[in-house]
Amino acid sequence: MDHVVSGIAKFQKEVFPQKADSFRELAGGQQPEVLFITCADSRIDPSLITQTEPGELFILRNAGNVVPPHSNDTGGMTASIEYAVAVLGVTHIVVCGHSDCGAMKGALSPESLVSLPHVKEWLGHCRAAVEVVREQKGEVCAEHLDCVTSENVALQLQHLRTHPAVAAKLATGKVQLHGWVYNIGTGEVLVYDEPTRSMSPLTGAELAAKSAAEA
Amino acid sequence: MDHVVSGIAKFQKEVFPQKADSFRELAGGQQPEVLFITCADSRIDPSLITQTEPGELFILRNAGNVVPPHSNDTGGMTASIEYAVAVLGVTHIVVCGHSDCGAMKGALSPESLVSLPHVKEWLGHCRAAVEVVREQKGEVCAEHLDCVTSENVALQLQHLRTHPAVAAKLATGKVQLHGWVYNIGTGEVLVYDEPTRSMSPLTGAELAAKSAAEA
Amino acid sequence: MDHVVSGIAKFQKEVFPQKADSFRELAGGQQPEVLFITCADSRIDPSLITQTEPGELFILRNAGNVVPPHSNDTGGMTASIEYAVAVLGVTHIVVCGHSDCGAMKGALSPESLVSLPHVKEWLGHCRAAVEVVREQKGEVCAEHLDCVTSENVALQLQHLRTHPAVAAKLATGKVQLHGWVYNIGTGEVLVYDEPTRSMSPLTGAELAAKSAAEA
Amino acid sequence: MDHVVSGIAKFQKEVFPQKADSFRELAGGQQPEVLFITCADSRIDPSLITQTEPGELFILRNAGNVVPPHSNDTGGMTASIEYAVAVLGVTHIVVCGHSDCGAMKGALSPESLVSLPHVKEWLGHCRAAVEVVREQKGEVCAEHLDCVTSENVALQLQHLRTHPAVAAKLATGKVQLHGWVYNIGTGEVLVYDEPTRSMSPLTGAELAAKSAAEA
Amino acid sequence: MDHVVSGIAKFQKEVFPQKADSFRELAGGQQPEVLFITCADSRIDPSLITQTEPGELFILRNAGNVVPPHSNDTGGMTASIEYAVAVLGVTHIVVCGHSDCGAMKGALSPESLVSLPHVKEWLGHCRAAVEVVREQKGEVCAEHLDCVTSENVALQLQHLRTHPAVAAKLATGKVQLHGWVYNIGTGEVLVYDEPTRSMSPLTGAELAAKSAAEA
Amino acid sequence: MDHVVSGIAKFQKEVFPQKADSFRELAGGQQPEVLFITCADSRIDPSLITQTEPGELFILRNAGNVVPPHSNDTGGMTASIEYAVAVLGVTHIVVCGHSDCGAMKGALSPESLVSLPHVKEWLGHCRAAVEVVREQKGEVCAEHLDCVTSENVALQLQHLRTHPAVAAKLATGKVQLHGWVYNIGTGEVLVYDEPTRSMSPLTGAELAAKSAAEA
Ligand SMILES: [Zn+2]
Ligand SMILES: [Zn+2]
Ligand SMILES: [Zn+2]
Ligand SMILES: [Zn+2]
Ligand SMILES: [Zn+2]
Ligand SMILES: [Zn+2]
Repeated sequence: MDHVVSGIAKFQKEVFPQKADSFRELAGGQQPEVLFITCADSRIDPSLITQTEPGELFILRNAGNVVPPHSNDTGGMTASIEYAVAVLGVTHIVVCGHSDCGAMKGALSPESLVSLPHVKEWLGHCRAAVEVVREQKGEVCAEHLDCVTSENVALQLQHLRTHPAVAAKLATGKVQLHGWVYNIGTGEVLVYDEPTRSMSPLTGAELAAKSAAEA
Repeated sequence: MDHVVSGIAKFQKEVFPQKADSFRELAGGQQPEVLFITCADSRIDPSLITQTEPGELFILRNAGNVVPPHSNDTGGMTASIEYAVAVLGVTHIVVCGHSDCGAMKGALSPESLVSLPHVKEWLGHCRAAVEVVREQKGEVCAEHLDCVTSENVALQLQHLRTHPAVAAKLATGKVQLHGWVYNIGTGEVLVYDEPTRSMSPLTGAELAAKSAAEA
Repeated sequence: MDHVVSGIAKFQKEVFPQKADSFRELAGGQQPEVLFITCADSRIDPSLITQTEPGELFILRNAGNVVPPHSNDTGGMTASIEYAVAVLGVTHIVVCGHSDCGAMKGALSPESLVSLPHVKEWLGHCRAAVEVVREQKGEVCAEHLDCVTSENVALQLQHLRTHPAVAAKLATGKVQLHGWVYNIGTGEVLVYDEPTRSMSPLTGAELAAKSAAEA
Repeated sequence: MDHVVSGIAKFQKEVFPQKADSFRELAGGQQPEVLFITCADSRIDPSLITQTEPGELFILRNAGNVVPPHSNDTGGMTASIEYAVAVLGVTHIVVCGHSDCGAMKGALSPESLVSLPHVKEWLGHCRAAVEVVREQKGEVCAEHLDCVTSENVALQLQHLRTHPAVAAKLATGKVQLHGWVYNIGTGEVLVYDEPTRSMSPLTGAELAAKSAAEA
Repeated sequence: MDHVVSGIAKFQKEVFPQKADSFRELAGGQQPEVLFITCADSRIDPSLITQTEPGELFILRNAGNVVPPHSNDTGGMTASIEYAVAVLGVTHIVVCGHSDCGAMKGALSPESLVSLPHVKEWLGHCRAAVEVVREQKGEVCAEHLDCVTSENVALQLQHLRTHPAVAAKLATGKVQLHGWVYNIGTGEVLVYDEPTRSMSPLTGAELAAKSAAEA
Repeated sequence: MDHVVSGIAKFQKEVFPQKADSFRELAGGQQPEVLFITCADSRIDPSLITQTEPGELFILRNAGNVVPPHSNDTGGMTASIEYAVAVLGVTHIVVCGHSDCGAMKGALSPESLVSLPHVKEWLGHCRAAVEVVREQKGEVCAEHLDCVTSENVALQLQHLRTHPAVAAKLATGKVQLHGWVYNIGTGEVLVYDEPTRSMSPLTGAELAAKSAAEA
């Protein structure tokens, strides 16, 4: 923890002064274009992966990058999504899963969660993803981690569609949904294609094109 | 959004290769020492502020850096805290609020939240913070934003103590709690001191000392 | 009510004897192919509209033909859908809304529901449908009853997809979803087409074709 | 399912034209006298059994003809009952169970429901019926299906009494409750007598009398 | 508060020694015959009113002597009733309301509860009592305090019947329910008679008879 | 039960007349200084232990003297605490556990609660107390009853702090919290000291001093 505290000192002495103008401008308000929902996993740094600056991504993180479907019972995700869409007016929502996810491993073997009652309950929101894989493969075991991770991203996109603010903006094309899986060991990002129910890599070519188009 | 996608291309081409060994090592598992709970606000980059690397902070983010008190009803925060403490064995938990927080502004004027039913409900978990300020000041208005932000951090620490896994580790000194408020425009971090119910800045001296001690 | 009781006498004396064999066979079990979800409205008789016999439709009815999205909290719809799909193995699920629906009128003017707290809360599950219409039309008023009725059917199909048993069977094509709106005054049935987000009548031609194909 | 679709064609071509006037009149509103609550079971056709026409019965159906007791948490039954009594002003409420009910079988052997978490939870609303039989018989097994089915109808009547709108109308005699069990194989309907806690058949004589009185 | 602490000293010095044997015997376990449910109101002392000794009454108290109806959601009352009936085997359950009850006054004027969200919600469990009075009297106002207090006791008895453990014992006559209203200013106790839906005083004669019979 | 009813006769004939003036005064309202939260256990008589009169203690009782932490979901404890603090203005809150508590025994061996689903769930609010002892002792068994009873009182004080009305008054010193454990067999009362996390007896000296000071 001392390391973290001294990191702040370093930030204040070495980093902040260089970006002081930018931070001062940000002090008055935020206008993020993207709501980025990802796992709490310590190995994921959304700003690093997307090479974005403070002010660009409104970020929600929990174990398993779960989006509970809308209900009248409020939770942190439901409230924060409402805020992002209805108040901040984000135009894109990314649900980003990742390789080696502890939550997905738990979803695959609920019997391992006996002493973790809340984790077990929370992963109830991933149950449909597991059942899809079970139906497709005939069974579900540790080998199906990647499938379940992908299906979970697809499921959470479905859940997003049940939230009133999201549904309204989707109906008029004012919001777009994106499902990603980030591979920690390779840096690769897979993108979910809904019509085909499949994940495909953002190829270098595509990315370069986008990169160029942006330039 | 194109900007974000091209950022990934840049990350993969320019950043990942330089840290490839580190990422490959991380691919097999995480051992974060710190659970870092902060607001979803786009202007907060925990890794930047603490100058930490992937793998160091297990990060939970929602509107208002709220920790609902423990109950038998599971939510994303409750489940993720259980996972962080009981499975990952984090030894420090930071609740980090910030200046100009939209959630805190909402907590101050619930009448502005009529069309945001879930945000309003979610901020029910901040109500005790507002009531404390109302009791102390005689009323609550926009001017009390900083007070409510600080009291909210203090309240969420109280909520953390009601979670079984946290309470158990606190009783034996295996976990420590920290309450911070980050100032977006100045880079300053205030630290909550529970006995005196007050916030004080991490002064340069202290930070330098810690920084030196670490070196 | 006397009319209803004497109807039973009539049923027992005049109707049952003619179908006694069929009823005796049904006494041992059911194997419905279709889960039919519709409004509690007294003017809808699913068996009459579809000209089906006892044993063909597993029927769930509530005000507004609502399907709450899946959550760990159980309700009658969630439990009954689980039973229909996982135990009975239905292969088709129809959500059937209707013209002049009192629940949809309530969803359009929540201020009229002040003295009906539970109806108001229940229609929270239709809120996304109202918000879609508001976003599309710029406002929402009594004129938009048909739009909201259609969007509500579309929304409840989305909710169905969040239920684990349904999601699993959808992924392998073992279950199909259908969204209908029944017009009480004309007998017409509109069918929801998801790709185009539009409703179109089951035309006589189509129906005749199906009817012929079946013969 | 083709059979169901072609049934609609048949309905539109052969049935609707004969009743067109009646349907057109119904198109403008409903005034049902009876709220009819029954199981989703495909073998039960309330209109057939009671020989009633569209517009006469407001019908709620779920697995087990369950009426959760009133609570501040809203569900489909609670909301629909409120609507039926407070808005439509029904004067009779029938809870109609039936022979060979899958839900009652599940209530009798909860261990069979391990893979059906929501069904199991939902049948928590029938637990008092099972406990009554256990207390009376010393144990509960498959043989007690009829007893549990009857007790369940009695219990759901008790639950109805906890709903504010129902309680209010009961206190002034404006609503009457009826508990029935329908026998699929014989067409018989048993009626629950609260003072004696017993079920007795609607005898032909009684029915004939009512039938005559009505004529 | 000093008064309360010094009261303990007085109890230990003057009262306990006289009953030491009895207390020592009680130290090993309890076998209360009666579950006594009453309001938290400071003016009600169940032991004083019933002239009973420690060990005789298992006592549950909350604002309004409310018994939420049974549901799968657990609360303190539901759990404690389960414990009293299933573990301790109490044979009588008394619900005891009282004159000048603040909770009943709140139930009569919910508009006075705006700043007391939890009290308002809790009194949702008394809503049926208020609606009964409204239906009977045509309106509800402060004058109807006694009626609402009586109806509330009657309603909570209904709620008790929905609890599985209670229902089971009621069915076999092993538990009896009693509804009382205690008048603070006169010491009178009214008893609810269910068949006639009315309250009548325990007259001196009756009480004397019971008192004599007991002697 | 006859004994209880005849006790009332005795109360009305022998006790009430002597205190009639006091009761008549109380009839118009209550102004308790202390909110006293204790177990439903029949062996605890708060008025006897503290030698207080009607009107002095606002008393909440449930199995295990549990105070659920504040949440938006309302329960009897949450509502009654809100009423006691915000309406009645109590200045002291006592949580009083006791020796030989059945609820604490249940918390120690949850496997014994299989047939008591609500008790088990309710004791979820004591789980942090059990986990603290498990962490401190390395395991938890029947021998740790006293430790768990003490930790449970400490935990419920933590829960109290999460309630808005309590938190507000604590911040300005208008309310004080007290944690006690009453020993049924000895009459002793232990007091929880938060800084040292330990319980110590109210010694005769202290009590005498207080008693004298009051005199
Ligand atoms: Zn993860
Ligand atoms: Zn914020
Ligand atoms: Zn309808
Ligand atoms: Zn059935
Ligand atoms: Zn009261
Ligand atoms: Zn106890």
